[in-house]
Amino acid sequence: MHEMFRETQDMEIKTRAPGKIILSGEHAVVHGSTAVAASLDLFTYVSLSFPPHSDNDNTLKLQLKDMSLEFSWPISRIKEALPKSGSLTSLAPVSCSVESSKSIAALVEEQNIPEAKVGLASGVSAFLWLYTSIRGLKPATVVVTSELPLGSGLGSSAAFCVALTAALLAFTDSVSLDVSLRGWLSFGEKELELINKWAFEGEKIIHGKPSGIDNTVSTYGHMISFKSGKLTHMKSTVPLKMLITNTKVGRNTKALVTGVSERTLKHPDAMAFVFSAVDSISKELTTIIQSPAPDNLSVTEKEEKIEHLIDMNQGLLQCMGVCHATIETVLRTTVKYKLASKLTGAGGGGCVLTLLPTLLSRIIIDKVISELESSKFQCFLTGIGGKGVEICFGVSS
Amino acid sequence: MHEMFRETQDMEIKTRAPGKIILSGEHAVVHGSTAVAASLDLFTYVSLSFPPHSDNDNTLKLQLKDMSLEFSWPISRIKEALPKSGSLTSLAPVSCSVESSKSIAALVEEQNIPEAKVGLASGVSAFLWLYTSIRGLKPATVVVTSELPLGSGLGSSAAFCVALTAALLAFTDSVSLDVSLRGWLSFGEKELELINKWAFEGEKIIHGKPSGIDNTVSTYGHMISFKSGKLTHMKSTVPLKMLITNTKVGRNTKALVTGVSERTLKHPDAMAFVFSAVDSISKELTTIIQSPAPDNLSVTEKEEKIEHLIDMNQGLLQCMGVCHATIETVLRTTVKYKLASKLTGAGGGGCVLTLLPTLLSRIIIDKVISELESSKFQCFLTGIGGKGVEICFGVSS
Repeated sequence: MHEMFRETQDMEIKTRAPGKIILSGEHAVVHGSTAVAASLDLFTYVSLSFPPHSDNDNTLKLQLKDMSLEFSWPISRIKEALPKSGSLTSLAPVSCSVESSKSIAALVEEQNIPEAKVGLASGVSAFLWLYTSIRGLKPATVVVTSELPLGSGLGSSAAFCVALTAALLAFTDSVSLDVSLRGWLSFGEKELELINKWAFEGEKIIHGKPSGIDNTVSTYGHMISFKSGKLTHMKSTVPLKMLITNTKVGRNTKALVTGVSERTLKHPDAMAFVFSAVDSISKELTTIIQSPAPDNLSVTEKEEKIEHLIDMNQGLLQCMGVCHATIETVLRTTVKYKLASKLTGAGGGGCVLTLLPTLLSRIIIDKVISELESSKFQCFLTGIGGKGVEICFGVSS
Repeated sequence: MHEMFRETQDMEIKTRAPGKIILSGEHAVVHGSTAVAASLDLFTYVSLSFPPHSDNDNTLKLQLKDMSLEFSWPISRIKEALPKSGSLTSLAPVSCSVESSKSIAALVEEQNIPEAKVGLASGVSAFLWLYTSIRGLKPATVVVTSELPLGSGLGSSAAFCVALTAALLAFTDSVSLDVSLRGWLSFGEKELELINKWAFEGEKIIHGKPSGIDNTVSTYGHMISFKSGKLTHMKSTVPLKMLITNTKVGRNTKALVTGVSERTLKHPDAMAFVFSAVDSISKELTTIIQSPAPDNLSVTEKEEKIEHLIDMNQGLLQCMGVCHATIETVLRTTVKYKLASKLTGAGGGGCVLTLLPTLLSRIIIDKVISELESSKFQCFLTGIGGKGVEICFGVSS
């Protein structure tokens, strides 16, 4: 029953890919410590549909629903700018050349992205590169929606690249899925590898030199530990629930990373121990997360240990000098309810994670959220360590 | 001209002894790290005067001026309770025996210390032990005033014991000073050693198992580093000014120390690195503090480094779990003015220190203080690393 999904069918496909969160080790990972990241139960959705054969609409459309933005290019204009599109003989991932990136920049510029959304340009460029490389010069409408806030360190760009790549590859010989099945379907190992590699090419267009963590977590889901460029996949035996608070304060990740490096140059001995402490914390976290959990008591004990580790990691991040007044505000609020929190990602604003223990009552959770939201923060309640990219087939309406 | 100061003279002597502050390494010192403490320019004053020979007032009086409290004992009552008083053949310090401590407890109990000031009982006991051991059964009036808040980790009890011991020893053969000199006079090395040892005996009555840091800093002044029970005296080449903020939140030092030990048992690897990081910070601090400072620029550079170290130590204390909401409030306020702060002492309330750089304007300092005081905190502006115990002779009015 496995058959290739043909673009000739008057159908729509949807993919979704999760965001990610750094549980421990941000910044210290740059200095050789282990870090741990997990997928979120918050997704970016990409829907791909084609005009019926009868239709003469020969354009490529990209709709960003959450922002009520639509970009569209006549296929003829894309062909003019990127004449080699669709000429790849294999689907082995290719980096965007300087030449192509110039042509793409021109295509993006023609779209008059609103001033306030100029940060989207690199994402639209990544879209054009991935689309034209994998699908070539074929019309389609791509609709994107997301549960992830943009540019807050939750991996929204990687989730977009992964979901888009998965949708595009579903139309190629590289992906073979049973289209008669309903609901969200997982990909095979080889397909995931291909998706991950292409998504990484998209991430490079958006971020310059991404670590590859975000697209890997978004593709494979679950959790990974990473150290000195080496990624290790792992699955959690503890169903962890997190409150993620977006301070909505923009960060300058590069400046923050530089700040930590400067502090390390000035105080090398102390900082070396700080990074080693973070490494121990990440290692202990991976041990706790993967150890079997036979009963409820044990889950609570594990959660308590994880709370300690979160608290300790936050102190060490403060020691690195990457905190921010808004982060402190979130910490102060959650500590009142005896909850452990830490900044996640670059710091200096961005997001804060708070572990919500299994036995914590919904009433308390609602209180914390309402207090944080009254400080104009944005809260997300989410499980972590769940599935990676998935696909869903359906007849387009 | 050196002559012993005779009690037969109708004079008053005054002593003063400074409080102390932990600059780095609190808690970690229990786990083998180096800590650094400095004397404060905040003093406890003890004035000792005797009734004229014509006077028949045969009592020992202790006046605590700041609290408007006066305790007094007929010498005959003391003789009854402590018949061996004044029988020491040398002034080598002696610990209070179980028997004596019971008798002293009875003498203190008779004084009906107000319920709210019951914490003073151990200080009054120390007073009786030191007075009767050194001076024996002689009438006098001892007046105590202090610039140090009680029980806030600034070494008020040690300053009291040191100033009292110094005043009492001034009447013995052990101390030889030129009574014709005016102003505050320092003691010689041997005298300081004797004062320090007796003060430590007083501290034992008040604290049970004191580290000896507080009385040593109060006696000798300047700064000391200490590690695994070993004290090293040092003098600062940088005139450092501190803002000390008393949160006025009472602490349970023992519980806080136990909390850090528990965390260390649960997460030994990470915590070992945390303590090593603190050790590095303390060592770097001692190097900066003692290095020659030829010009203004260098002072500013040193202050910047010290600010980093303060900030890092604070992060590590957070990592140990000894912070408190009120401490966070102080940190949040001072960080707005780009000032580095850390808790000092046990944490969980108590005091916070803030380095005030030499070039910081008085206007900013006043703003910070006024903001902190509006949060009902108590602020002290003080130099650190100044002189230890001193004595002043004068004709009593």
